[in-house]
Amino acid sequence: MTLRFLWPGRTKNRDLRALEGFYFERIRTLVDCEIVPTKEARGLDEKHAGKIMDIEARGLEKHIKDDYIICLFDKGREMSSREFSKLLESRWSGARQPVTFVAGGFLGLAERILERADFSLALSKMTFSHELSRVVLLEQVYRSLTMIKGRSYAK
Amino acid sequence: MTLRFLWPGRTKNRDLRALEGFYFERIRTLVDCEIVPTKEARGLDEKHAGKIMDIEARGLEKHIKDDYIICLFDKGREMSSREFSKLLESRWSGARQPVTFVAGGFLGLAERILERADFSLALSKMTFSHELSRVVLLEQVYRSLTMIKGRSYAK
Repeated sequence: MTLRFLWPGRTKNRDLRALEGFYFERIRTLVDCEIVPTKEARGLDEKHAGKIMDIEARGLEKHIKDDYIICLFDKGREMSSREFSKLLESRWSGARQPVTFVAGGFLGLAERILERADFSLALSKMTFSHELSRVVLLEQVYRSLTMIKGRSYAK
Repeated sequence: MTLRFLWPGRTKNRDLRALEGFYFERIRTLVDCEIVPTKEARGLDEKHAGKIMDIEARGLEKHIKDDYIICLFDKGREMSSREFSKLLESRWSGARQPVTFVAGGFLGLAERILERADFSLALSKMTFSHELSRVVLLEQVYRSLTMIKGRSYAK
């Protein structure tokens, strides 16, 4: 299984970036995976939200191929960790298609990226900062892989 | 408003501990608050789950006074960030009672602590590691306080 994580720009909060690395290194011992920081809109005020999201959507689209796409979306489907792990496992045992997770910048994802997604995932009913969402996603992917591979993982 | 956070032991993962400090320092600029690491059961195998949870429950009980208690519990109530912020605000404008958040160790909280709680909160349908839960809780409390105080906070 190949997993990819796409999101605009490198994570800025130092501690969140360290944690991102922490979970990523663990995932990497279990599957082939990469994090791809895509083009980030810079220097634009939040009132240009449409423009920001369009620039970032174009950056993401450059890397969205024929993969199975799971977008993080706060109105997406909530799942238990067990259900999430079953979703990943079903992709694993089926097609050889890589699974690509796509998460937005601070304004979220453009409509057209959400439409392209094969699955929209909500991590919680609560809204997490976009950088914290990346970390929670990686932790859940790591947890899922340990379930699939039957390894133990701290609760 | 006084906020307290009780959980068994100091957070061990270095990056999660750094993040805990990051959000805690921000919360502390807005309200009076403290993190109280309570007694942690050490050196006991997981098969002694009942004993571990009892030792940790006793540690928590020493610090649970007449506060309004919100326990983290995966079968608790899920809320949006807006609803969570309204819950905190209602405590703020009402009684002068401190609000105390209680989170468990790696086995969770003993039944009697959950029964004592005034409110049981689930952060997600997903299961987060107990140390990540602490960080997500602090981030949500910080987010709520910025909403209540009308400050801006990164999405």
